[in-house]
Amino acid sequence: MKADVKTLDPALRARVEDFLTDYAHRLDDGRIDDWTGFFTQDTLYQITTRENFEAGYPIGILLCKGKGMMEDRVLALKTANVFEPHTHCHILGRPMLEALPGGEIGARSNFSVYRTMESGATELFAIGKYLDRIVLEAGEPRFKERRVILDSRCVDVLLVFPL
Amino acid sequence: MKADVKTLDPALRARVEDFLTDYAHRLDDGRIDDWTGFFTQDTLYQITTRENFEAGYPIGILLCKGKGMMEDRVLALKTANVFEPHTHCHILGRPMLEALPGGEIGARSNFSVYRTMESGATELFAIGKYLDRIVLEAGEPRFKERRVILDSRCVDVLLVFPL
Amino acid sequence: MKADVKTLDPALRARVEDFLTDYAHRLDDGRIDDWTGFFTQDTLYQITTRENFEAGYPIGILLCKGKGMMEDRVLALKTANVFEPHTHCHILGRPMLEALPGGEIGARSNFSVYRTMESGATELFAIGKYLDRIVLEAGEPRFKERRVILDSRCVDVLLVFPL
Repeated sequence: MKADVKTLDPALRARVEDFLTDYAHRLDDGRIDDWTGFFTQDTLYQITTRENFEAGYPIGILLCKGKGMMEDRVLALKTANVFEPHTHCHILGRPMLEALPGGEIGARSNFSVYRTMESGATELFAIGKYLDRIVLEAGEPRFKERRVILDSRCVDVLLVFPL
Repeated sequence: MKADVKTLDPALRARVEDFLTDYAHRLDDGRIDDWTGFFTQDTLYQITTRENFEAGYPIGILLCKGKGMMEDRVLALKTANVFEPHTHCHILGRPMLEALPGGEIGARSNFSVYRTMESGATELFAIGKYLDRIVLEAGEPRFKERRVILDSRCVDVLLVFPL
Repeated sequence: MKADVKTLDPALRARVEDFLTDYAHRLDDGRIDDWTGFFTQDTLYQITTRENFEAGYPIGILLCKGKGMMEDRVLALKTANVFEPHTHCHILGRPMLEALPGGEIGARSNFSVYRTMESGATELFAIGKYLDRIVLEAGEPRFKERRVILDSRCVDVLLVFPL
C-alpha cells in the first residue's frame, strides 16, 4: 500500500492541528459565540449520519450553507431554546491531512464527544469523524467545509450545541 | 525520572503516526482487503488480554504468524461468517515511539474502539493498547509485529473484524 | 479569531507531548511509584470538578501542595487502603501548548479514563481536562502544577489511583 496522502509542511500541520483542537476546546467551554469564527463566509457545515453520507443524501441532520445560517442557529440557541444545561468534552484522534489543489487542506479526524448533564452523569453523546476542507484566510486556518459524519445514530442533535 | 525513549527524527515520526492513523481509518471504513497490506510477510499479529499478556501466555484470543494466516482470516470474514453488520470507530492516543536496534521502531499507543450496530446504538467495544514493532519496507512503514492488548475482557472478538 | 497561543519550538513540543503521554502510560501500568517523579518539589496537584473550578473553590476533591503530600498519598495507597483491583486506560487529546513568561509552558489537554475491574467489565471512569504548568528541570519536563478538571461528577475518586 502506497501512502496516498501528500505530507504537509510540519509548521502548517502544527497550526492546523492547533486549529482543530482549539475548535473542540471552545465548544467544550460553551463559547458558542466563537463558533462561527472558525468558518469562512461561504462555508458549508453539515451534521449527518454515516449511513446518509454514504448513500449520498445531501442534507442529513443539519446543513448550513454560509456563515449567515450558522449565526441564525447561534441566535436560536441563545434566545429561543430551552434545554437542560450540559457540557461537552471532545476527544479527537490525530487528523490525516492532505494538501489539495488551490492551497486547500483536506482533513479527516475521528472524534468522540461526551455529554455531562446537570446531574453529573456523563454519557457518550456522539462518535464519528470530521471531514474538512480548510483554507488560510489572512494566514489563519478556516473551515471552508466541515462535515460531521456520525457513526452513532441515537442522538438528539436537534436544537442543541454544534459538534 | 530520565526519559528512557530515544527520540525519532520528526519526519519519520510523522510518517509513522500517519501510518497508525491510516490503519485505524481503513478498518473504520470496513476496508478489510487493505488490512494485511499494513504488515510484513513474516509478521506477528496478536489479540490478547492484558491479563494473559502479563502472565506470558503465548496465544491469547488470536495469533497470526505470517501474512498467510491473516489472509485466511480475511477470506473467512468475507465468505463463511454471518454476523450482524456493524461499524467501528477508533480513537487513538499519541504513540510513544522508540528507535530500536536494526532500524526498527517500537510503538505503544492506547486505543478505544466503539462499535455501532445496525440499530444505530453505539457502545464501547474494546479498550487497550497497541504494542508494535515497525520496519520500513521500500521506504514505507509496515508492522513486523502488532500486539493488541485489551484491558476490557468482555469482548466477543471471535470471527469479527480485526482491531 | 486570531490564534492566541504562542507556538512552541517543535522539538520542545514533542518532548512535552511525550512527557504527557508517558505520565498516562505509567499510571495505566499501575506504576504508582513513578507518579511523583513527574512533579517538581513545590508542585500543586489538584483533582476538582469543572463546577467547583469555575466557581473558584480552592480545594475540590483532592489538593496536594508539594511532593511530600503526594508521597504520603502513594504510601496510603500502598499500605492502608483496601480496594478492588482495577486498571486504568487513558485516552488523551492533543494538548494546546503555550509559552508562558519565565520559561514555563502552559498546557491544556482533554482526557478520558476507562476503568476495568477484575470482572473484566470496562466503564468510563472520568472525563475532563488537564490544565498544566510545566517547567524544565535539568532539561526534563516536570509539572509545577497539574489540575485535573472533571466534567463527570459521578466519580468515586477518594482513596484510589491518581489521574
